[in-house]
Amino acid sequence: MFVSFEGVDGSGKTTQVKLLAEHLRAEGREVVETREPGGTKVGEEIRELLLHGGVMAPWTEAALFEAARAQLVQEVIAPALAGGADVLCDRYIDSSLAYQGIARGLGVDRVLDFNLIATGGLLPDRTFLLDVPLEEATRRRGPESDRLEREGDVFAQRVHEAYRELADVFALRVTRADATLPPEETARFIREELRDIS
Amino acid sequence: MFVSFEGVDGSGKTTQVKLLAEHLRAEGREVVETREPGGTKVGEEIRELLLHGGVMAPWTEAALFEAARAQLVQEVIAPALAGGADVLCDRYIDSSLAYQGIARGLGVDRVLDFNLIATGGLLPDRTFLLDVPLEEATRRRGPESDRLEREGDVFAQRVHEAYRELADVFALRVTRADATLPPEETARFIREELRDIS
Repeated sequence: MFVSFEGVDGSGKTTQVKLLAEHLRAEGREVVETREPGGTKVGEEIRELLLHGGVMAPWTEAALFEAARAQLVQEVIAPALAGGADVLCDRYIDSSLAYQGIARGLGVDRVLDFNLIATGGLLPDRTFLLDVPLEEATRRRGPESDRLEREGDVFAQRVHEAYRELADVFALRVTRADATLPPEETARFIREELRDIS
Repeated sequence: MFVSFEGVDGSGKTTQVKLLAEHLRAEGREVVETREPGGTKVGEEIRELLLHGGVMAPWTEAALFEAARAQLVQEVIAPALAGGADVLCDRYIDSSLAYQGIARGLGVDRVLDFNLIATGGLLPDRTFLLDVPLEEATRRRGPESDRLEREGDVFAQRVHEAYRELADVFALRVTRADATLPPEETARFIREELRDIS
């Protein structure tokens, strides 16, 4: 199965990927953990450009995430799924829908089309939105460090709301997980939700 | 007006951009010359990644060109056209159609959709395909220098044929110019062709 984790920075995605991977491996499953943007050599170079590059046009940003994603699908995700492994991805297509599609106003439909073209239509079997109040995420995340984070509270608020909107629109695929709980409890909720597809 | 120049490396695009720009300026017109990928700070960084990065997935390559193009449109081309200038671009959307759409087999329709989404639908008023036999282009270009050029003769042949196919499909916009002529004669042909829209 292919599972992605979404949420604002500081929502606990990395922790949940790790906890689910440990659980699945303990059950004897093969698991590939990856992250966006990055996860490949080209992707890490694009990540650098995205996080520390200068001002860029919204569609430039969207296309750079897309470029990294296309590489990750071809090089990592598709071969892993074809080989029978589970793939857990820290951010995937919904990050583009939330950040560029909604928060930057490019439009969910257009960003989704743009992404489906370049990923060969690959969507996760299930996506978890790690839902925490924005103040809590900001507190956990610590000092602001990259370009997207520096855009400040108004943009962060828009992204936060965008994710909730996506969870409503794509309700069959995207599940909100309460990430204010202790991590082990959130992880247990996620495992329960995956029981029917794993 | 917005005019793009296309053709394999060594077909004389840079020279023709320069000659047309000189002619238009002599007529008192304001002209902006630019090139792809590049033409902006972010674009030049993407250019580096494209020309000297490692092996990449076809859609990653397509999305990186697209990212550079989106930036160039927003930062250079659209403002110049809005300000009344002529824009002459060394490569634009047809490069993606020829290299990724046809030669790499991603499909012209999908690459075109992908591009129109991110450029806000901006197409040139007129595009000139500088048409030279492949051997002539190879001879003019000198020692091979970047990743795309290193792919060799089979790929170059595919791109060469792809451009001719595009000139047939988009016959109203794309004009084949004989680039085996002395540059000044090719330039005169191009000026004649532009007479009705300039």
